[in-house]
Amino acid sequence: MIWDYLKVSTYRKNSRKWGLQTCKRPFIIESTFIRGLETTATYDPKTKEFILDSPTLTSKKYWPGCLGKTSNHCVVMAQLYTQGKSHGPHMFMVQIRSMEDHSVLPGIEVGVIGNKFGYGTNDNGFLSFDKLRIPRENMLMRYSQVHEDGTYVKPQNAKLAYGSMVLIRSSIVSDAARGLAQACVISIRYSAVRRQTEAYPGGEEPQILDYQTQQYRLFPLLASAYSLQLAGKYVFNTYLEVNDQIEKGNLESMPELHALSAGLKAFSTYEASAGIEVCRICCGGHGYSQASGLPKIYVDVVPGCTYEGENTVMMLQTARYLMKCYSRAKQGQKLPGFVQYIGQNLNKKSCMSEEVALGCLVMAYEHRAARLVEAAAMRMQSLIQGGKKQHEAWNGSSVQLFWAAKAHCHLFCVKNFVDAIQAKSLSSKTVTVMKSVCQLYGVHGILENLGEFMQDGFFSGEQVGYLQRKMLALFENIRPNAVALVDAFDYPDMVLGSCLGRYDGQVYQALYDYAKSAPMNQTEIHSTYYKHLKPLINPETTSDAMQFAKL
Amino acid sequence: MIWDYLKVSTYRKNSRKWGLQTCKRPFIIESTFIRGLETTATYDPKTKEFILDSPTLTSKKYWPGCLGKTSNHCVVMAQLYTQGKSHGPHMFMVQIRSMEDHSVLPGIEVGVIGNKFGYGTNDNGFLSFDKLRIPRENMLMRYSQVHEDGTYVKPQNAKLAYGSMVLIRSSIVSDAARGLAQACVISIRYSAVRRQTEAYPGGEEPQILDYQTQQYRLFPLLASAYSLQLAGKYVFNTYLEVNDQIEKGNLESMPELHALSAGLKAFSTYEASAGIEVCRICCGGHGYSQASGLPKIYVDVVPGCTYEGENTVMMLQTARYLMKCYSRAKQGQKLPGFVQYIGQNLNKKSCMSEEVALGCLVMAYEHRAARLVEAAAMRMQSLIQGGKKQHEAWNGSSVQLFWAAKAHCHLFCVKNFVDAIQAKSLSSKTVTVMKSVCQLYGVHGILENLGEFMQDGFFSGEQVGYLQRKMLALFENIRPNAVALVDAFDYPDMVLGSCLGRYDGQVYQALYDYAKSAPMNQTEIHSTYYKHLKPLINPETTSDAMQFAKL
Ligand SMILES: Cc1cc2nc3c(=O)[nH]c(=O)nc-3n(C[C@H](O)[C@H](O)[C@H](O)COP(=O)(O)OP(=O)(O)OC[C@H]3O[C@@H](n4cnc5c(N)ncnc54)[C@H](O)[C@@H]3O)c2cc1C
Ligand SMILES: Cc1cc2nc3c(=O)[nH]c(=O)nc-3n(C[C@H](O)[C@H](O)[C@H](O)COP(=O)(O)OP(=O)(O)OC[C@H]3O[C@@H](n4cnc5c(N)ncnc54)[C@H](O)[C@@H]3O)c2cc1C
Repeated sequence: MIWDYLKVSTYRKNSRKWGLQTCKRPFIIESTFIRGLETTATYDPKTKEFILDSPTLTSKKYWPGCLGKTSNHCVVMAQLYTQGKSHGPHMFMVQIRSMEDHSVLPGIEVGVIGNKFGYGTNDNGFLSFDKLRIPRENMLMRYSQVHEDGTYVKPQNAKLAYGSMVLIRSSIVSDAARGLAQACVISIRYSAVRRQTEAYPGGEEPQILDYQTQQYRLFPLLASAYSLQLAGKYVFNTYLEVNDQIEKGNLESMPELHALSAGLKAFSTYEASAGIEVCRICCGGHGYSQASGLPKIYVDVVPGCTYEGENTVMMLQTARYLMKCYSRAKQGQKLPGFVQYIGQNLNKKSCMSEEVALGCLVMAYEHRAARLVEAAAMRMQSLIQGGKKQHEAWNGSSVQLFWAAKAHCHLFCVKNFVDAIQAKSLSSKTVTVMKSVCQLYGVHGILENLGEFMQDGFFSGEQVGYLQRKMLALFENIRPNAVALVDAFDYPDMVLGSCLGRYDGQVYQALYDYAKSAPMNQTEIHSTYYKHLKPLINPETTSDAMQFAKL
Repeated sequence: MIWDYLKVSTYRKNSRKWGLQTCKRPFIIESTFIRGLETTATYDPKTKEFILDSPTLTSKKYWPGCLGKTSNHCVVMAQLYTQGKSHGPHMFMVQIRSMEDHSVLPGIEVGVIGNKFGYGTNDNGFLSFDKLRIPRENMLMRYSQVHEDGTYVKPQNAKLAYGSMVLIRSSIVSDAARGLAQACVISIRYSAVRRQTEAYPGGEEPQILDYQTQQYRLFPLLASAYSLQLAGKYVFNTYLEVNDQIEKGNLESMPELHALSAGLKAFSTYEASAGIEVCRICCGGHGYSQASGLPKIYVDVVPGCTYEGENTVMMLQTARYLMKCYSRAKQGQKLPGFVQYIGQNLNKKSCMSEEVALGCLVMAYEHRAARLVEAAAMRMQSLIQGGKKQHEAWNGSSVQLFWAAKAHCHLFCVKNFVDAIQAKSLSSKTVTVMKSVCQLYGVHGILENLGEFMQDGFFSGEQVGYLQRKMLALFENIRPNAVALVDAFDYPDMVLGSCLGRYDGQVYQALYDYAKSAPMNQTEIHSTYYKHLKPLINPETTSDAMQFAKL
């Protein structure tokens, strides 16, 4: 990611120079409230240097990857001060360790932050500066500049810097989708191997994948994995297009894409993390073993809810854009592309029939998102009319804003999925299978959020009945293709790292081999026996000790 | 737990004898489908011994705690064969390691299962037998017996053994509640310390607990924690009562309690695990550090979804009881205690007004549960009428059965919470505060599952508006008491083990101390530098190596 930041934020020659100097990637400093950073970079025109300082405990930066023990350089975000004035956060390239002997340079405190939920192989670190001086050229000056005399030149357009964020967030969407897809591979393959509970007295134990409840938990996730992969791909491709336009000076499409990528980053990481845990729990006890590969996937994906923009904050960013769209729509302005549904007439009823047409699904998601956007806007308005200040009204509406943003992202995922399976390049056989998956994605999403679709009478109770029956029918429909649908993701066993998700299905032998290779199994009697157990068990010990052992 | 099994399942004298022999607790063998166990115990009247055998890979038992390296004895569930007939699963006390030198006895293979998601200090193990002989007396014969000549005597009442399951499951409900409560303590205290993002340009950064979205994620969990603690307590107390009755030969109340405890075990572990992760994510980046204490709480609680009865299977057990109740109600029979709502008239409308009376909340949950029980029963019926066999109809209805069971448990939690705050012993001040918490529990639960309350028109759109506004109002109401409400759980810092959840709020110093004490921070330069980085950075190395380093 850092390379993208550097590419976007620096002059080419500097980027190359630093790239060469840097052993492994340097890292970038981020936090929810960039403007609130306490680390300062004060320009000293006498020496043509910036002085970096982070004097308090709370200004220590935590978390950057590879910072603790590995990186020699990093990009630091700090409050820029020059000519006595503050200009907000800017980025600086900072050397933190010697290129000669890797010792920490004076004026710097750096180390690892200690144990984490996952990321065991990453030396996530903390960092602080005590009046460290760095040359003026180390400021990343592509957008804003500080001249030698200390004059500050502000960027032409603040939105220019959005590009790298969009790129990074699109890659997080794809990472989340990949994690969920891998979890589905493991859990669905295992569910085809595992047999449990005779269906009727004396009957064969079915594959657990034949249980409707197992299908109910896994198949919608399989559909999500496809949907999120498609969404990540869309955002990435659109980024490339928009970036081309930006290079030509056209910034028009950036806000929509930026808002979409922020929301989707949150939507996808929430969906994927929760889904991975469901996949894990669907494997029963063995899902809890590292042998399943699933705990590792979870702890890799779940911090995506936090880094590169905390998810709630991301959703609210998306909501801010939606509110702008809403007020534009109410003023009769035409909205760009995908957000055109905002401000639509809400008096419609759903066209849903037993057949569950894709068009009726999309319409339902549009209606829900449009209604929730309007509801949030109305709430804001009524709070302001009731005398609240703008920021109070925002906070007092933020739960509804969150709902609106989530509905917007959900709509995008459904619509994008429908568009994708209607693409001309697909064979009709593929379309038949993928249509069921896509329908399931849409139907299940409605049933899980049913209140939001029903509150204004958009769906009748009867129509909900259609959807429920359709969902169960889709399970039966997808069942014969389920294993093929996960095989199609094409992750090799080495990537999955799972005894349960093996392509050859030799689950039990693999679990046994995994257990046998555990270090504790290399001796028959563990050293703790001699230290703790023997004194308790040994007949010579007093009966007091035995009493103690019983507790 | 094992002591309860032993107490319930053996003659007192044997329980004491084995208790003394056993170093640490032995373990009990469990799995979803007990009857499908592959391990056999065949009685040999000549030597008055049982022969234990688990010949296949799939018959190896995985997971029991303390089995891998610690236990000398264990209780094994195996298929009993005597006089050439199978009698289903029974329990046997088996010695697996020598009391002299802890060596593994002949005929036994035992070891740890390897790394897990959590439970790092527990040597969860695997076990198999190769024609191991054990004395006849080692069968736990309180309920069923095998005489010396091999005659099998079956238990007087199969339901007798339910007692220990109820007890264990009630303790899991309480464990789950405790985990969620601790996570709430940490996350809510930290949210009162942490400040983030100025509310308006130049304004102070608010405590993150003042963000409505933060309240939306944390306060309903706080309410859940209270509700689940009360539920666990109820089941435990009722178990004691019912057990008294059982000792007197009255088994009447057992089925209801058994069904409730199975469902609540599932309901509570699902709610608590998901909730703990929300608490963790609400702490931003630091929630992902082990310093927060939250990852540990999660990995401790989440396997509760699996052990002592896999959650989906538990929910379906509850549903089976609900179906029996439904058909009894339809035959005009009176149902016992809490399940009396089943079979009620479903044509009612909600009495909900702006004020959100507790009675209207309970009525709403009763209506929803009654409707879902009926819907599941109707689905079963229609499948059977359509020619499906009983077990096919069951499986084809199991998603709806799951919904019904979940609604039943949810209703119980709401009703039990309402009952608890209406208890006479509480001061009026406590009632005022706790009533808001209880209302929030009820209101939030409806809004999260809104479709289930709306599908038949029970709530009008207007009433849903009342609930939404009430929820937001309750957040403001609870906010001033939030920290006191978590302090009231009274967990000392040592129990929480969290830098973020400290009572004194000195979060940043604690995080810094935690980081400084990390083993990797005890040297300035890590050994991997010399091994991997130095050869890459050193100027003498070729430019090829530098290229490689850049990748
Ligand atoms: C595995 C991992 C790797 C990381 N790698 C890096 C890295 O390489 N470089 C780097 O710089 N950083 C890194 N980070 C840090 C990460 O970027 C931050 O944790 C993230 O930006 C969130 O900020 P925070 O931790 O301050 O959370 P906070 O902002 O304190 O969030 C805490 C809570 O407050 C709420 N909140 C905050 N502001 C608002 C608001 N305005 N409105 C409503 N709610 C709000 C949030 O929703 C959240 O629930 C990493 C973190 C992790 C976990
Ligand atoms: C931390 C931990 C500690 C443990 N400690 C012990 C211990 O001390 N002693 C011990 O004996 N065991 C222990 N276990 C094992 C535990 O009891 C089993 O894992 C549990 O009973 C579930 O059985 P299973 O693993 O075979 O899952 P499975 O039954 O294979 O479940 C896999 C999936 O199949 C589904 N499924 C299975 N049957 C049905 C059905 N009839 N209808 C619908 N769906 C179904 C489940 O819902 C689940 O999604 C432990 C497990 C863990 C994780």
